[in-house]
This record gives sequence, structure tokens and C-alpha cells, in this order.
Amino acid sequence: MTETRPTLGVGMVGHAFMGRVHSQAWRSVGAFFDLPVRPSMTVLSGRSRGRSDAAAAELGWAGAESDWRRLLDRDDVHIIDICTPGDTHAEIAIAALEAGKHVLCEKPLANSVAEAEAMAAAADIAAARGVRSMAAFNYRRVPAVALARQLVEQGRLGEIRHVRAQYLQDWIVDPGHPLVWRLQKEKAGSGALGDIGAHIVDTAQFVTGQPLTGVSAISDTFIKERPLLGGGGVGPVTVDDATLFTGRLRDGALASFEATRFATGRKNSLRMEINGSLGSLAFDFEAMNELSFHDHTLPAAEAGFRRILVTEADHPYAGAWWPPGHGLGYEHTFTHQVKDFLEAIAAEKDPSPSFRDGLNVQRVLDAAERSAAAESRWTPIPA
Amino acid sequence: MTETRPTLGVGMVGHAFMGRVHSQAWRSVGAFFDLPVRPSMTVLSGRSRGRSDAAAAELGWAGAESDWRRLLDRDDVHIIDICTPGDTHAEIAIAALEAGKHVLCEKPLANSVAEAEAMAAAADIAAARGVRSMAAFNYRRVPAVALARQLVEQGRLGEIRHVRAQYLQDWIVDPGHPLVWRLQKEKAGSGALGDIGAHIVDTAQFVTGQPLTGVSAISDTFIKERPLLGGGGVGPVTVDDATLFTGRLRDGALASFEATRFATGRKNSLRMEINGSLGSLAFDFEAMNELSFHDHTLPAAEAGFRRILVTEADHPYAGAWWPPGHGLGYEHTFTHQVKDFLEAIAAEKDPSPSFRDGLNVQRVLDAAERSAAAESRWTPIPA
Amino acid sequence: MTETRPTLGVGMVGHAFMGRVHSQAWRSVGAFFDLPVRPSMTVLSGRSRGRSDAAAAELGWAGAESDWRRLLDRDDVHIIDICTPGDTHAEIAIAALEAGKHVLCEKPLANSVAEAEAMAAAADIAAARGVRSMAAFNYRRVPAVALARQLVEQGRLGEIRHVRAQYLQDWIVDPGHPLVWRLQKEKAGSGALGDIGAHIVDTAQFVTGQPLTGVSAISDTFIKERPLLGGGGVGPVTVDDATLFTGRLRDGALASFEATRFATGRKNSLRMEINGSLGSLAFDFEAMNELSFHDHTLPAAEAGFRRILVTEADHPYAGAWWPPGHGLGYEHTFTHQVKDFLEAIAAEKDPSPSFRDGLNVQRVLDAAERSAAAESRWTPIPA
Amino acid sequence: MTETRPTLGVGMVGHAFMGRVHSQAWRSVGAFFDLPVRPSMTVLSGRSRGRSDAAAAELGWAGAESDWRRLLDRDDVHIIDICTPGDTHAEIAIAALEAGKHVLCEKPLANSVAEAEAMAAAADIAAARGVRSMAAFNYRRVPAVALARQLVEQGRLGEIRHVRAQYLQDWIVDPGHPLVWRLQKEKAGSGALGDIGAHIVDTAQFVTGQPLTGVSAISDTFIKERPLLGGGGVGPVTVDDATLFTGRLRDGALASFEATRFATGRKNSLRMEINGSLGSLAFDFEAMNELSFHDHTLPAAEAGFRRILVTEADHPYAGAWWPPGHGLGYEHTFTHQVKDFLEAIAAEKDPSPSFRDGLNVQRVLDAAERSAAAESRWTPIPA
Repeated sequence: MTETRPTLGVGMVGHAFMGRVHSQAWRSVGAFFDLPVRPSMTVLSGRSRGRSDAAAAELGWAGAESDWRRLLDRDDVHIIDICTPGDTHAEIAIAALEAGKHVLCEKPLANSVAEAEAMAAAADIAAARGVRSMAAFNYRRVPAVALARQLVEQGRLGEIRHVRAQYLQDWIVDPGHPLVWRLQKEKAGSGALGDIGAHIVDTAQFVTGQPLTGVSAISDTFIKERPLLGGGGVGPVTVDDATLFTGRLRDGALASFEATRFATGRKNSLRMEINGSLGSLAFDFEAMNELSFHDHTLPAAEAGFRRILVTEADHPYAGAWWPPGHGLGYEHTFTHQVKDFLEAIAAEKDPSPSFRDGLNVQRVLDAAERSAAAESRWTPIPA
Repeated sequence: MTETRPTLGVGMVGHAFMGRVHSQAWRSVGAFFDLPVRPSMTVLSGRSRGRSDAAAAELGWAGAESDWRRLLDRDDVHIIDICTPGDTHAEIAIAALEAGKHVLCEKPLANSVAEAEAMAAAADIAAARGVRSMAAFNYRRVPAVALARQLVEQGRLGEIRHVRAQYLQDWIVDPGHPLVWRLQKEKAGSGALGDIGAHIVDTAQFVTGQPLTGVSAISDTFIKERPLLGGGGVGPVTVDDATLFTGRLRDGALASFEATRFATGRKNSLRMEINGSLGSLAFDFEAMNELSFHDHTLPAAEAGFRRILVTEADHPYAGAWWPPGHGLGYEHTFTHQVKDFLEAIAAEKDPSPSFRDGLNVQRVLDAAERSAAAESRWTPIPA
Repeated sequence: MTETRPTLGVGMVGHAFMGRVHSQAWRSVGAFFDLPVRPSMTVLSGRSRGRSDAAAAELGWAGAESDWRRLLDRDDVHIIDICTPGDTHAEIAIAALEAGKHVLCEKPLANSVAEAEAMAAAADIAAARGVRSMAAFNYRRVPAVALARQLVEQGRLGEIRHVRAQYLQDWIVDPGHPLVWRLQKEKAGSGALGDIGAHIVDTAQFVTGQPLTGVSAISDTFIKERPLLGGGGVGPVTVDDATLFTGRLRDGALASFEATRFATGRKNSLRMEINGSLGSLAFDFEAMNELSFHDHTLPAAEAGFRRILVTEADHPYAGAWWPPGHGLGYEHTFTHQVKDFLEAIAAEKDPSPSFRDGLNVQRVLDAAERSAAAESRWTPIPA
Repeated sequence: MTETRPTLGVGMVGHAFMGRVHSQAWRSVGAFFDLPVRPSMTVLSGRSRGRSDAAAAELGWAGAESDWRRLLDRDDVHIIDICTPGDTHAEIAIAALEAGKHVLCEKPLANSVAEAEAMAAAADIAAARGVRSMAAFNYRRVPAVALARQLVEQGRLGEIRHVRAQYLQDWIVDPGHPLVWRLQKEKAGSGALGDIGAHIVDTAQFVTGQPLTGVSAISDTFIKERPLLGGGGVGPVTVDDATLFTGRLRDGALASFEATRFATGRKNSLRMEINGSLGSLAFDFEAMNELSFHDHTLPAAEAGFRRILVTEADHPYAGAWWPPGHGLGYEHTFTHQVKDFLEAIAAEKDPSPSFRDGLNVQRVLDAAERSAAAESRWTPIPA
């Protein structure tokens, strides 16, 4: 069998946690999905030459660079996959798009609305030239979340009345947890809000198909100082430990959002419950292969939330993997993400979520921050 | 408003655990169900005059006797409610039926097949004279179990392939638990098998509408000796701690049953799962207000076990109580039992389960005991 | 056995849903709890003589009146139990207290802060004369909720960081549901907020032992008009269908509250999750016999939310009823309530929750309403 | 960084469902585990040259052969990974071991006890020469199952009293499902019993650390004929649709096992519950990232089954992957399997489970078949 599909070289920037997950996605996608293009794990870049070489060997990349700019110069790199902290996204993404590389960028898209706007503008210009960009909201690619979207789209929920979305973690409950970059505003932009709140905002808007129009927020940093990483005293935590906000969707639903790293016992609980006039949905990423669906059109005597094991051949993405009941894991959402990205590139279509979708999430986060700083005053989201 | 309904006097024999539950049922039934007859808590009897008087006062009975035979002589007693250990059931029930009293008898119906046969024969004779009898398998009156029966009856499960029934408790896991009457063969007849195994046999046959045709059993007594109740040494445990058996239902389904008092952490877990060609059911009494139902006729992509909260107005018994979502408790199953018993008496119909149903359960238990004693050999159940 | 305990006559005002539940509590409490006083179901009152007589007969009260004022004149009535809509509470309760009757009053305590203040003042004056009053927040008496309070009190949660409380129902999702009194502001005071929001506010403050210090709210009425009860057109819904608010507890925890009658598929889901530095709790009234507890002091490799079946002899209230694993239902919370009320009267102590606790809840509801009307502005709760 | 670890070439036989899973394991293992040797996906073999070439390209193998014997001749193949139906295992495995290749063999080890004995004997001889063999009971490598084993080993369950193990699927509930090889005795050896019953037998013995000493079984084929795959009529189903058996573990625990393909709504529900004198465990593969553990040494008032999310750094295998709460999927159990296999080869130790463990499982299956054919008579398992 002769391979006739075009090969697209990938250059990945960053090789920490996100880099490892993205690598597994690039490595696996071709064995499970019949792709129109073939990705090649061409090169990764990091800040240190030695660590980049080691990461490339461990994660299966053909080469390594110590400056991401080098990736843009290479003809064998067609895609830039950005896995670095948020403060670097704008610079890298805009340069890559200008260099004609398709860009997949981790979330949050940027650390500020201004940066995100610049990125979205660059993406629009690039798109006109056939260069694609995608924001990496991987939770859209959980089969259960994609199924939730389908059910809403098919009208199975009727008019949506409520969304309650939470992203609960507990990894910094211990005051002895050190002051890592995710707790520093200049690196991370914000704390729980941008890191995990971004995901529930995107997921809620994706599943309902409706944007948020305004929010009212409260926020706090429970532990004000933490040990410095290198030892030698403590430093100030400059981001939120937890942010809660209420909001409204375009068609009037009342919503609540909570992002926290202090929900003791909840490890990665991205939860969402949606109530509509004809039905309801519930999801928790800690049981990611399940979607709960209540069909209110059934007779009351036999209605109830049903646990759909989202592993059937007919379910989004699931059919490419294993037989029913053989669940998927966290990394698969990234495999689905690059699959959709590659298919969009091949089809010469803009992938979803776009940078503009990422900008929209950024605007919600920004409105939440402003509301929290202004006595929780209702704060509209600019369209 | 003048009360025109006839009043039926109740005489309850025994006032320990079961007597307390039955009292609550007699006390409450009239306030929730529109009954054709009015029960009167006339008299209870126990072995000690003093304790019987105290129990009557505490439990709300008008009077007390220290010999159950006195109750049969009273014209103001129309119903005998037997709440004593199994070794006394046959004598009391047969005498009561002969005295023309309607009889409600706790399970297991008797401690042997022979006794149960005599009781069933007496019940048949009495029925011909309009005197009613009922075996107290209260779990049939859990709304969720009654709903399960409805769904099977409506054909929602199709052909039944599997029943897996367990009744799991853990109250004698501790070897220091004393040698109470339930651990003595001469009082209790058998151990886990008769006490709780009887319930899952009745419930499985009730819900499926099919009798068991044969069983193969194993059984054990893990702790052979226990402290005597009064102190002063230990005595032998003469009943089973746990009995398991496989079986077949009339139409070919394969079934498994397990009754144990050694399932650490399970308190009163009467569980049943039934699989049919068109659907499945699952139930656990520890969450007694819920029934899980899988409708296999739905598209695979949206099928799953749904948790029906069995508290709707349309559900069996539930409408008489509270609004949806306001659950019931253990005692309510007994209230439903006396409601059905009273309605059957008023309608001059035989209530269900009959003594003959109780006899059938006894035959299954007996077959299980014989199989366990004969190298698990398959043992048919006499019809 | 001679009965030597004093008897306290009860006069119940109102005999609809709440009256039925309270009746079952008065009827049952003596059979399960060893009380220092004996309640007598002396008389109920309603607006119609005929319906009151019928209700008394059905619910087991010795007599009936068609004007609640008559109850205050009777010497054989020592307790007034108020089960009417909120607009009548203040008048009845204050008159009863002034007449020297102990008062148990359904929630919300009143339809306005002003009324609640008058009631609390009357309660203080009465208490000085030994006359007791209690607000009927029955959910405090769910054994699982009482256990939650114990765990918090014992410090098992450490510093509390988060409360997320929801009370979700769905009984008016259908726009065809008629305009009952609960949807009319003049009768009900408010909608979801006062009816069910009141419960989660009280429960959250009870379990954490901390008052709310401020809130930020949004609210909506999704269906603006509904069919009139008697037929003949529609009328305006004048209360909230749903209200959400964020808040802060005294010691800094961030909290969220949601009360809605539009959570399709949720029937009576009073849910609460609390996260502290040492542990977490979760509860849902739809599984009222369970409490989830995460003990964060255990090694991470064996920690997790454990499902405590709150039916053990050592659990609050549960020991009075049945063996472990034999659950309780909705009505039992009311039985526990009158048990605690009667014990407080006998002990000459003020029962809890007091009218002042009820006033405090009223102030939270009022602050939420004002915030919702003022662009969600943060609104402090007066102490 | 120079790669100094030795490389071991893998030759995989078969490339259907199991071949795809094994390929993903070989492909991924090196990126997540720091292995002492480096596996190379050298070659696969299938029966058709064309399909083998295509499979190699799709699954990432360097080459393909159409006869598995060729793999044994190659010096660059050090490991033979057998992914074919059970009727071919003995021949391939024995030849491979004799050729000095390490062998990983899918379960059931063989289609008969005689074949399995020959394989175990060959494995013993090979082991003496440093050639390793392993039976592919992948469910031992679910982190939750491995954690269960640890807890039992640490004595946390005390004396084991009960095991109830079920493997429930529903893929042939529809009588229209064709007569695939898994339903033919000559290919598959047996039906549900060998295919999925083998897994629960191995898992139960692994977790408890105790072998079964005897069984009593019933079995049935509900649908006797099915459509032939190529069309043109029906053919007989020659294997069991479902087999149930009771059993005893070495130290006296009573156990029950059920393997069925007719549990409508259960997709891949490998469930196990174990009760001991000090605690209990429960597991269901449909929620594979969770283990339920009841610690009976805690005070009754705070004990309960806790849901341990088995994704912590301290949990078996889990630390190599993602942060807590980011679950794994089905294929990961195979990645863990090859990791353990490679480590054993490098350490010159025999991996576990051995072929002898596989033989033992075969003996249990054989005893179950014989018991089912002999009126469920108790049938001891030869040691």
C-alpha cells in the first residue's frame, strides 16, 4: 500500500504537562482515525537545549530546538502547537500565523483581552490566506460533552433555563504548596478563573450554543502567601484561588459558574448540569465516559436521569476506539482535538473553537474579574 | 361527617422489632389511604403481662394480653397479626384461621415445609369461609419493587434472561456478637437463608411472575460458636451465616441468589438486577426510593440505566403520601401491606402473597438446604 | 403502668400539605421517642367548618374549629402549630405567644423582614415568660444533615472554604401549570426564593455554624402568566421562578445558592456540598439517608468521598427507629422536629431554630431580592 | 542524549481487536514509563499479506508477514505477542518459546486444559533458559484492581468471607447477531465462560491471593441458532451464552461468578465485590478509575463505602500519566501490561501472571463446564 496522503510536519512549543498530552495525541491519532493528512512529529522546542533534546527523545519527536522562532523558519513544519504558559501565546501565535503556519493554541487563549483581540485579528487575516487556527478547549472533545451538544442541537432539552457549571480541584488546599507559576499573575494571567474557569465557560457556551451576556462575580485568594519554589521564604499569591459568578445566556437562562482549587476531595471535577423545558443533562469529568440525560417528554412514572455510557459506535469519536463499555481517558480528548484540527486543515475550513471563540471566553473572564472588583456589579459581556 | 365504614379490630401477637413496625403501619394507614374499613388497634399479646402492657402503651394499642389464645376468644378482634419468631407461626395462624380471624403472618411463613403446608391447607379451608390470610413479604410493597413488577407485566423487559438477587447484611461480622435467637435453628429455622433469603426469593418470583424450578446451593457458618446472651461461655451457632444458590426460573432464565450476614459495609442491601431481551431493572433497598430501568428499545446512543425516583403520583402507593422527590422509608412498606390486606378483606378477595406463596418460598429454601447438603446437586422445586 | 407524664394539647392551624405532614409527626413521635411530655392531637382549625371536620377525622385530631382564634381560648391547647401560608404567620404567631401558647411556625417565618422582626420580638418577650417558639426548618432534622453539623462542629472539615447549596424542583416547568397561591406574591411573599431558598439558607448556616454576611443575586420569572385556577383566562405570576445568589460566610468561605422550580428532572433535590481545609461533605435530599464525607487527613491513595448510610444507632435520631440500612422518609424530619420541640418545652429551654434564626433567614432572602433588583450589587446582611 | 538501553523487537501475531489494543500499548509505553529496555514495533503477521501490510501501516509496525513462523526466524524479533483466537495459542506459543522468544499470550491461555498444560510445561522449560512468558490478563493492570490487591495484601480486608464477581455484556442479546467465531466452540473453546469468565476468575484469584478450590455451575445457550456471517441461513451456536457458578476460595470464602453476554444494558461490566472481616471492596470496570473501599475498623457512625478515584501519584501505574482526576481508559491496562512484561524481561524475572496462572484459570473453567454438565455437582479444582 503506497501512502498517498500529504504529510504535515508539526512543531510543538513547550514540553511540560500540556506538551506530554499533545504528544500522545499526535502519536496516536493516525492509528485510530482515517485521516486525510498524515501528521509528522517533526520538532519540539523548549527553553533549554538539553531538556528539549531529552523531551523529544522521550515524547517521540524527531528533533528539538531551543528557540521557537526556529520552528517558523522550517519548511517541514506546517503546524505550530503552542503548549506554553499564557503570557507567551500572543507572540508565538501571531508570529506563526504570519509565517503561514497553522496554529493550535492552548487555553486560555491569552492573559488579557487585548492580547486575545490581537490574536483573533491575526487569525482572521491568516484564515483569508488559508492558514488555520484553533483554540485548544479540549473538553469539547470528550465524547459525552460532544453528545450533550448534539442533544441540545436536536432540541431534546427544549428551552434552556439553567446552567450550573463547576470546575473543582483541590491541589493547593495545603498552605505548604509552593508558589508555582500558575499562582503568579504575570505568568498565568489569573488563577482558577483563567486556568479552569475558562474551560467551563467554553464548555457551557459550546453545549448550549449560546454566549453569556453578563456576569456577577466574587473571588478570593484564601492563602495569601506561599513558600517560594527554590526555598528561602514566602512570596505573595497574586491570582485568585477561587472565583464564582452568576450569568445569563443569550436566550435568558440563568447560569452559575465556580472555579476553585480548594474543593477538597474533588480532583478534576469539571461538572455541568443543564435544565431545559424538555429535558436535562448532567456531566462530571471525573466520570468522563458517562452522560446523564433526563428526557422530560417521557411519562413521569418512567422518567429519570439515565446514565448513558458514551462508548457506543454511534457516539461522537467513540466508535474509532474500542467496543462499548471500554472507556477512554483524559488524553483521548486531545487526540480528538488534533483529529478535528487536521480534518479542518485538509478540508480548507476553519476549525472550531476559533481564536475568536477563545477571545470571547477571555472577555467573559475579564468581565468576571471586573465585576468581582466592583462589588459584584452586573457586568455585560461585549459581543 | 358520620363514620359509616366498618371497624375491624386487630390483635397483634408479638411486640418486638416486627411488632413495632406493624404498629406504625396500623397507626398510620388510615391517614393516608381512603380505606373501605377502619382498623382499630385493639390488643396486643406477649409472653409477659408487664412487658405487654408497657408495649401496648408505647405502641398505641388499646389493651394487652399475655396469651395469644385470649385474642382468638375476643369478638372485637377480627384480624390476627403474627409478629413472633417462625417456630410459633403454624400453631397461631392455624388456630386463628379456625377461629375465623383473618391472619397476617410474618415471614418466613414457617420453619419447615411441613408446617407451611399445614398453614396453606388451613388458609384454603378458611378462604372458603371468607376468612383471609396473607404472608408478610413487605418488600413487595416498596413502590420501586411494585413498579418493577408493573414494568415486567407490561412486557417492558421482554424475555427474562437473568436475575441476580442478593440480600446483604453485616450485623454479625464481629465474632463477639452474642448467640441471639436468630442464630438458633430451633427458633429461627435457618439463618440468613430463611431470614433474608426468603425475601429475595419472594421478591424475584413476584417481580418476574415466574417460580423457580430448581436450585444448586452452597452454605456456610463462618463463626461456629458465639457468646451466650446471658454471659457464661459460648454456644454453637446452628444456622447458616451465608447461603448462595443458583437457580432457574420457569421460562429458562438463569438466576443467582445470595443471603449473607457477613457482607461488611452492607446494612440492608436487598438488591436485585433483572435482564430481559428488551430491558433491564436494578434495585437496592439501601436506596429504596429509586428504581433503575434500562430500556433497550431506545437507540443505543441514548440508552442507559435511568434512575427513576419512585415518588410520583402515578407510582404504586407513592401518590398517597408526599409530593415527588419526598421519599418514603422502611416502615411505609408495612403500611402499604396492611392497606392491601384491609382492601382485600373488604372486597372479599384473597390477598397476595397468600400462605401458598409463602409455602412456595419455603420449598425453595428447603431445596437450597438439601442441595447444600448434597454437594450442591441440582434440586428441583416441587410445584 | 400509670402514665405520669404531663400531656400537652396541640392545636394545629391549617390542614393542607404541611398540616398532613405535621399530623403524622404528632401521631408518631410518642411511639419512637421516650418523651418527657405527651402530646395530644387536640384540635385543628381551617377556614371551612366542613373541611376542617373532615380533615380532623382523616388526620386523627380530636376536634376541629373554623377560626384559629378559638384555639387560643382553649385551656386544653398548649401548643399552636402553624401550617398556613406565610402571609398569616405573623398575626397567628404573635397572638398565640401573647396567649401563652408555645408556637411551632412553618417557614418562611414571614413574608417580610418587618413581620419577622415583630415575631422575633414577640418570641423574646414570650420566652421571658417561659413560652417557647420554634421555626420549622425541618431539614435540620434529616439525620444526615444533623450528622453533617456534628462533623463540622468536631472540626472534621477544618476551615470552611466553600458552600454550594441548591434546592432544585421542577413542578412548574409546564407553562400550563395553574396560578396557585405559591405563585402569588401577596400570599407567598416570594417564589422559589422564600419557599425553598429559605431552606438552603437555613441549612447552610446551621451546618457551618456561620451566618452569611452578604449576597449578590439574580432572579427571573420564566413564565410570566399562567392559567387561573378556576379557569377563565390567565393571570400574572408575581414571584420568582428561580433565584441564584453568591455569598460569603462569616469566616470568609465563598458560597453559592440556587433555588429553582425549573430544574427539569430534579424533584426535591436539596443539595449541599461543603469544602473545608480538612474535609468535605455532600448531601442530596433525594437520597436523604446518605451523607458523603471526604476525610482529607487520610493518605491520598485511600481517600475519597464515602457514602455514610445515616441509619446507625449512633447517628442523630436514627437509633430511635429501625436497624441499620432501613431508611427513613420525608415525614420523619417532622417527627424529629416535634420531638426536639417537646423536649425543649419540658426542659424549659428555647428550642432551635428560634424565631430569631427565622428572622435571620428572612434578612438573607430580603438582601437577595434587593441585590437582584439592583444589578446584582453586593448586599450586606444586617446582623 | 545517547540511547544506551537495549532494544527488543516485537513481533505481533494477529491484528484484529486485540492487535489494535496491543499496538497502542507498544506505541505508548516508552513515553510514559522509564523502561530499562526499548521495545521496537518490528513486525506483525496475519493470514493475508495485503491485510497485514495495511494493518502494519495503520498500527505503526515497521513490517508485516503473512505467516507467524517467519517471525520466529528473525533475529530482530525478541518478543512474540499472540493476539489470535484461542485455538492457535498453544502451537504459536510453544514454537516461539522453543525458538527462544519471550511470549506474551492473550487469554484464555488455550481452549483446553491439555493445551494449557503443554504451554505451561513449555514455559517452565523456557524459563530455565531465561526465556519469559506471560498470560495477558490485562484487568490486573487496571490501577483500581492493582490497588484492590494492595489493600488485601496489607490486611485491610481481614479474613475474606465473600467474593461476588460478574462480567456482564449484552452484545448478542439480539437474535439477529451473526454467528461470529466467538460463538463457535472449535475456534473459541467456550463462550462467555472462556472469553469473559476467564477474566473474573483471574481477577478474583489475583485480588484475594487465593485460588478457587471447587465450583458448582449452571450454563445455557439462550439463542440456539444464529444467521451465518456470509448470509445463507443459520448455524448452531456451540458455546455458552451465559455461565454462572458458585465456588470456594482456599481459606473458605464463598464466591459467586457470572459471565454473560445477555445482561442488557451492561456493556463491559466486569464487577467484583469482596467482603472481609475488616473491610470490603467494590469495583466495576464501567467506572474503571474508581475503587470503592469500606473500612470496617472506623466507627460505625462515619464508616461507608468510599469512592477512591484511582488517579493519584501514589496509586499503581497512575503516577506515570496525568494529574489526579484525569482518568485513564481501557487501552492503558495493556500499556501497563507490556511495561511490566518488559521490566520482568530486563530484570531476568518471570512476569506475572505466568502461563501456569493461565493454566489454573483454564482448570477452573473446565471444572465449571464439567459441573454444569453433571447437574451442578460440586467439582474440585485440581491444584
